[in-house]
Amino acid sequence: MTTEKKCPFCNPNIDNTAFSESQNFLAIYDIAPILPGHSLIIPKQHIQSIHDLSNEQLYEFLQFGREVTRKLSIFFKTEAFDWIIQEKEEAGQSIPHLHLHIILRTKNDLPDAGDWYSVLKNKNKEEIVDSENRPRFSIEELKIIAKRLRDAFAELDKE
Amino acid sequence: MTTEKKCPFCNPNIDNTAFSESQNFLAIYDIAPILPGHSLIIPKQHIQSIHDLSNEQLYEFLQFGREVTRKLSIFFKTEAFDWIIQEKEEAGQSIPHLHLHIILRTKNDLPDAGDWYSVLKNKNKEEIVDSENRPRFSIEELKIIAKRLRDAFAELDKE
Repeated sequence: MTTEKKCPFCNPNIDNTAFSESQNFLAIYDIAPILPGHSLIIPKQHIQSIHDLSNEQLYEFLQFGREVTRKLSIFFKTEAFDWIIQEKEEAGQSIPHLHLHIILRTKNDLPDAGDWYSVLKNKNKEEIVDSENRPRFSIEELKIIAKRLRDAFAELDKE
Repeated sequence: MTTEKKCPFCNPNIDNTAFSESQNFLAIYDIAPILPGHSLIIPKQHIQSIHDLSNEQLYEFLQFGREVTRKLSIFFKTEAFDWIIQEKEEAGQSIPHLHLHIILRTKNDLPDAGDWYSVLKNKNKEEIVDSENRPRFSIEELKIIAKRLRDAFAELDKE
C-alpha cells in the first residue's frame, strides 16, 4: 500500500474517522466542514491524480461517491450538492492526495449559492497559517460523527 | 431521445459545436469561458441529476470526461484543472441539465487559485440579467473552436 508520511489522508487515524468504505476508497467527514455534511471521498492509497486511477478504480471512486452522496442527502435531508475535484496547486488543491469534495447544500445556507468556494479557500489558507485559529474537529469528535453516520448508513442499507 | 425545448444544452445547434463525443455524452466549449479551455461534458439526453444516470452511464460520463480533460491538458499545455458538478439551484446550478465543468488552470491565471468560482458565479448572474453585456461566443465562433479541437484530438488519437 502506497502511503506518504506527511500526508494527512495517509494518517493511520483516518480509518477510525471514516464512515463508509469501498474496496479502495474511504468516505471521511471534513475535519473543518464549511457546511453540515461536508465530506470527502479519498483513495486508501496515496494517489495524487484522477489520471492515476485505473478504469476500474475510476468507476469505483465515482460509483461509491454517488452512493455516499445519496445517503448523506437522506441523512441531511437535502438533494442539492456540489462535487469538486481540484488537481494540482494551480487549481486550488491543498493536499496532494486525490479527494472529491461532497458539499451538501440547502436554500440560503450561504449568502450566495456560490459562496462555498471562498469559504473553502479561506479555510485552507487559515490551515496553512494557523490551524488552531478556527473551528476544527478533534479526532475524538470525528470518531463520534463517523459512528453516527455509519449507523445511519447501516440502517439505509437494510431498506 | 429526451429533450427540453427551452434547455440550451438540448438545442439542436449543440451537435455542431461539440468537439468530442461518446455514445451518450458530448464535450462542448463553454459559450463564455472563464479561462482558455473551459469546457463542459453533458449527456445528449436531458438528464438533470447524476443520480438519474445508470451505473454504466456514470462510468461513461466520467471516463469520457477524464479522456477529454487529458486531451485538453495536452492542447492547452497544463495538467492542472478543476472539475465541478453542481446539483440543483441551491448548489449554484444555473441550467437544470447535468454538466461537468472542466476548467483548465495555469499558474497565476487568476489573482487567487480559487477565484474561478466567483468568476463563474458572476458570469451566470450576468447571463440572467443581460446576456449581451459580456464576451460571449457566437455559434459560428464556437463551430470554429470545435473544429480546431476536433482536429487536435484526432491527431492525439493517432499517437
